[in-house]
Amino acid sequence: MKYIDLRSDTVTAPTDKMREVMFKAVVGDDVYDDDPTMKELEAFAAKLVNKEAAIFVPSGTFGNQLSLFTHCNRGDEVILGEDCHIVMHEVGASSVIAGVQLRTLRSNKGELNPENIKSKIRSGEDDIHFPSTGLICLENAHSNGRVIPLSNMREIYTIAKENNIPVHLDGARLFNAASYLNIDVKELTRNCDSVMFCLSKGLCAPVGSILAGTNDFIKKAKKKRKLMGGGLRQAGFLAAAGLVALKDMRENLTNDHENALFLGTELSKIPGIKVRQDDIHINMVFFSIKDTPLKSDVIVSALLEKGIKINGEEDGEMRFVTNYWVKKEDVMYVVKCLKDLL
Amino acid sequence: MKYIDLRSDTVTAPTDKMREVMFKAVVGDDVYDDDPTMKELEAFAAKLVNKEAAIFVPSGTFGNQLSLFTHCNRGDEVILGEDCHIVMHEVGASSVIAGVQLRTLRSNKGELNPENIKSKIRSGEDDIHFPSTGLICLENAHSNGRVIPLSNMREIYTIAKENNIPVHLDGARLFNAASYLNIDVKELTRNCDSVMFCLSKGLCAPVGSILAGTNDFIKKAKKKRKLMGGGLRQAGFLAAAGLVALKDMRENLTNDHENALFLGTELSKIPGIKVRQDDIHINMVFFSIKDTPLKSDVIVSALLEKGIKINGEEDGEMRFVTNYWVKKEDVMYVVKCLKDLL
Amino acid sequence: MKYIDLRSDTVTAPTDKMREVMFKAVVGDDVYDDDPTMKELEAFAAKLVNKEAAIFVPSGTFGNQLSLFTHCNRGDEVILGEDCHIVMHEVGASSVIAGVQLRTLRSNKGELNPENIKSKIRSGEDDIHFPSTGLICLENAHSNGRVIPLSNMREIYTIAKENNIPVHLDGARLFNAASYLNIDVKELTRNCDSVMFCLSKGLCAPVGSILAGTNDFIKKAKKKRKLMGGGLRQAGFLAAAGLVALKDMRENLTNDHENALFLGTELSKIPGIKVRQDDIHINMVFFSIKDTPLKSDVIVSALLEKGIKINGEEDGEMRFVTNYWVKKEDVMYVVKCLKDLL
Amino acid sequence: MKYIDLRSDTVTAPTDKMREVMFKAVVGDDVYDDDPTMKELEAFAAKLVNKEAAIFVPSGTFGNQLSLFTHCNRGDEVILGEDCHIVMHEVGASSVIAGVQLRTLRSNKGELNPENIKSKIRSGEDDIHFPSTGLICLENAHSNGRVIPLSNMREIYTIAKENNIPVHLDGARLFNAASYLNIDVKELTRNCDSVMFCLSKGLCAPVGSILAGTNDFIKKAKKKRKLMGGGLRQAGFLAAAGLVALKDMRENLTNDHENALFLGTELSKIPGIKVRQDDIHINMVFFSIKDTPLKSDVIVSALLEKGIKINGEEDGEMRFVTNYWVKKEDVMYVVKCLKDLL
Repeated sequence: MKYIDLRSDTVTAPTDKMREVMFKAVVGDDVYDDDPTMKELEAFAAKLVNKEAAIFVPSGTFGNQLSLFTHCNRGDEVILGEDCHIVMHEVGASSVIAGVQLRTLRSNKGELNPENIKSKIRSGEDDIHFPSTGLICLENAHSNGRVIPLSNMREIYTIAKENNIPVHLDGARLFNAASYLNIDVKELTRNCDSVMFCLSKGLCAPVGSILAGTNDFIKKAKKKRKLMGGGLRQAGFLAAAGLVALKDMRENLTNDHENALFLGTELSKIPGIKVRQDDIHINMVFFSIKDTPLKSDVIVSALLEKGIKINGEEDGEMRFVTNYWVKKEDVMYVVKCLKDLL
Repeated sequence: MKYIDLRSDTVTAPTDKMREVMFKAVVGDDVYDDDPTMKELEAFAAKLVNKEAAIFVPSGTFGNQLSLFTHCNRGDEVILGEDCHIVMHEVGASSVIAGVQLRTLRSNKGELNPENIKSKIRSGEDDIHFPSTGLICLENAHSNGRVIPLSNMREIYTIAKENNIPVHLDGARLFNAASYLNIDVKELTRNCDSVMFCLSKGLCAPVGSILAGTNDFIKKAKKKRKLMGGGLRQAGFLAAAGLVALKDMRENLTNDHENALFLGTELSKIPGIKVRQDDIHINMVFFSIKDTPLKSDVIVSALLEKGIKINGEEDGEMRFVTNYWVKKEDVMYVVKCLKDLL
Repeated sequence: MKYIDLRSDTVTAPTDKMREVMFKAVVGDDVYDDDPTMKELEAFAAKLVNKEAAIFVPSGTFGNQLSLFTHCNRGDEVILGEDCHIVMHEVGASSVIAGVQLRTLRSNKGELNPENIKSKIRSGEDDIHFPSTGLICLENAHSNGRVIPLSNMREIYTIAKENNIPVHLDGARLFNAASYLNIDVKELTRNCDSVMFCLSKGLCAPVGSILAGTNDFIKKAKKKRKLMGGGLRQAGFLAAAGLVALKDMRENLTNDHENALFLGTELSKIPGIKVRQDDIHINMVFFSIKDTPLKSDVIVSALLEKGIKINGEEDGEMRFVTNYWVKKEDVMYVVKCLKDLL
Repeated sequence: MKYIDLRSDTVTAPTDKMREVMFKAVVGDDVYDDDPTMKELEAFAAKLVNKEAAIFVPSGTFGNQLSLFTHCNRGDEVILGEDCHIVMHEVGASSVIAGVQLRTLRSNKGELNPENIKSKIRSGEDDIHFPSTGLICLENAHSNGRVIPLSNMREIYTIAKENNIPVHLDGARLFNAASYLNIDVKELTRNCDSVMFCLSKGLCAPVGSILAGTNDFIKKAKKKRKLMGGGLRQAGFLAAAGLVALKDMRENLTNDHENALFLGTELSKIPGIKVRQDDIHINMVFFSIKDTPLKSDVIVSALLEKGIKINGEEDGEMRFVTNYWVKKEDVMYVVKCLKDLL
């Protein structure tokens, strides 16, 4: 049975073309720097985001944590939003791998106040009681489904540069953000020193993410990637799919966003459903269901029988995520099924 | 030259009685559990705050960090205020020693919102992406000079207990808080599972703090204290002074508080000085100086010539701290000198 | 140009069958436990080594470090040989990720003295000055090319069990060891609580290794794998190749071993070459070249021109590694080229 | 009751003179660099061992771990003897605080083989698989009671300098070593970049040790001391006693050593007692008791009734430690009591 899967865009199966290029991929031992397909991917990826160099990592979490580990000395302080992925969904890894102290700032739907950031920056040189701010982390598109305005990123980056603090951008859904803002992705990445973005998720590659930055940064990261167990051998298979992801699949994200908006609009027509329509920037629709006797897990089961996979509610909200394999007719079918159910 | 020292209450020299008891102290090797004076101090201290057991540590920072290290597993999350001492003035130690992830919450002048805390608690059992909340930290009196209401502590402690999360109280100035609230200190410490309080600061002991909690907690802490290099030998000298601090000096804190209020009132009469009078709960007076051509370091130097030690401004504010060795006439002299200067 | 690559067995390209099964692989999001091919691989792998459960990890280093991280509490002591891979070639990761203290014992060509291990075991319960021994690590086949006798593993495992210490086996080349000893691999893995073995290396899978142990251990490891950034999405492609590696490729290791022995014998006939023939247990040949004016890097370059890839000497020795893609005629060609050169 | 205490030299009570100078000590807040007695101690201590600077730390373990933490980057490798104090009796702290990987070398009664050390040095620059050697640690006098020859220290230091690796000397009993070798302590400390030595132990100060090194090293260490909770306030009391320890008490160590030799000689006359007489370099006597039906704890109890405190056997051996408070007649009394008992 083929399912309509709205749980996340991480569930995206690779395309047929990806399978084909993987089948034919020329590969080598990447720890020996011998994998030509991986080299091609890393070069292409670096250029795409206008950074000097890039390195493949097994996951987005790996890439973010490797970035913290490479930018910071242990004991440094990292300024970031209280609701960002690094804080929320990376298992507390920053305290284990990089060994840094987090300063989790209030976020306005993912957006951080530049003045607040400024007031938190400090230098261990100034006071024997202080750690040094080692990094500021931004996230765009945010995992709450919203895109942070370019102007906000610019302001923060200016403050960071005035204080010689590097900025890392968690761009797990970087191309979704660029698509929403209708700008070249380089406009986003010029406001950071390093960026991580995923080849999987909306771009459909099976495995992997990219960390990009200066040559020096990536050289250091390469060694630390080895330490973290991310030195892969014939990784060119994954790179081959990643190249398709970056070359062919970015355009499609607009469809995902349109489908999400459409899904939001249709869901909001169902009585009892309250959609956060203004927060639909990319491919995520958040909504709550009022006045229903049905529990979240009952809804999950009922839709599963109809061939629809969704996650249960979290903090009182449901999240539906569109992706490449969810077509407009699928959206309509989902809305119909949910309407029937409620 | 004898100085009036308003930089901090950490500068308090020990009293003559402390010197006498130190001179006569019966001591032994405390790593062998052989120091009777230390045993007496630890037993007295535990009883004072109504905990099963207590352990002497070389400093307040040592005590707080030992508590984090003992309560938490590495990688756990710790919820605490963004402006608390553990975040602000402990050199990022929590990321090094305990290896925990901080969730730094917005604080309202040191007070945390119980509902906000509640919303941040999570369990690694629930989601493979989550760390577990390992500890909530409170601070009272706060290093911003204010005392947190007992009701706020109670609410937070109730939430913590409902979620099986321990609470640590940074009570560096615990007795100042009890004095301000005019309650027995046990009323405060019943709202925490462990508490650190300083024998130095306003209580005038030369060196050391106490960490108190359950027997089991203190047993574990004792081993981790050894790991952190805090296993001392003939520490009974410090314990002897500590016993005087706890027995004789707590009463005096009221004077410090009165002197601080008086100092605030008098300072606010000087044109151009703006005192945060409402924030004077204990022995700290925060104020800013407007419309003066004098830079902060010039004021510091000028007062030093008058026999007065103060710190320069931080974030646009001056802080004067009263203590046992600062008498009412000293306060008047300070006010006069500052008035003359401005 | 097709090269004969003797640098390592990590350079092995996947077989055509692997490419085919990858092409057709049924995949899903493995973080959601949705990848049937991965589930099949993990179940097959666990059964093969007679453990309750198994998980896929991106590399051997990842698997070893994940095992340390899962078995040990931070600050525990790990007993292992001074020349094992975890000490020598994992970038010091054990001090970063697991945060453990290594006790590196003298090894007799990879073999540890059971009595020496016994004398190093200690419990933090016994003495406030002691950490607890958290783990003993063995390695078989050893990265020095030798296979550790089963009796040695048994003795050590008995001591470990008597002291309630778990044993981890770094079995990067586990099947090479079983092949050399001509025993079922289960005979080896019954002497450990967890085992890591590689799907790449001699077995030719492109990427990945397996960590196997009890259900409880693997459940914990799964969460820590996420923390380390090893939660992959559509990893079934790698699993598909891994299944071929485990099902079809183990038999071939005997050929690699025979080719290594043959290579050693032939090399030793070349004047000036001294082969450690007795140490050829698996697919590695170590030898030194005496009385030659040629530097190591000149030899590397000269052979490269002949289509042969080798590493330069390390600590005065060359290492040639046979693998699936090196046939007997290749071995003869290599020997001829080297003889001509010297 | 006054006991003869042979358990360790850590049990030494301070002298009357120490009590007097503590009573009169001029003190200040050392975190504000305001304690003149502490400044005097640190300057005196630095000069004594011919280093640029020194800082006071609460314990020997604190000083050693602070040194590792200051010399090394996290993940670095530290080369040291398998039986040294840092490995054996510091609770695994190096894996927690400094976060380094230990290479524990075989030691010949505390002496390390320079060639063995040399073969273990490596640089992370050379190979992506390697950590970098960050530090070599020596210990003299060794906690096994022996003094390492100066020539051995020199050889190792030469190798270290050729490889740009710093050397730390754990000199908990540094002055015992100098006394045994009958040389100025500077002859020992010129073979290290940093040295820790204890003011307590044989020198009788109640609490504290010194870490000495270059100005730059000590500046960094001061900040990390704060992080570890070792920033003390009116520590001048401890410094006052420490000054007496360093000025007046070093000469006495010869007596302790003579008493130990005498004790060894006399004990070996008792039938069934086997003394390691050749290993009596400083104030420690190791011996085993054969052919006695008495268990170790019975002997401990029996001697305690006679006013003698000893530790039970460890690894089949008893250790008696002489110190300032153990006079020759006490030694004779101990021997008599033990003879009577056996």
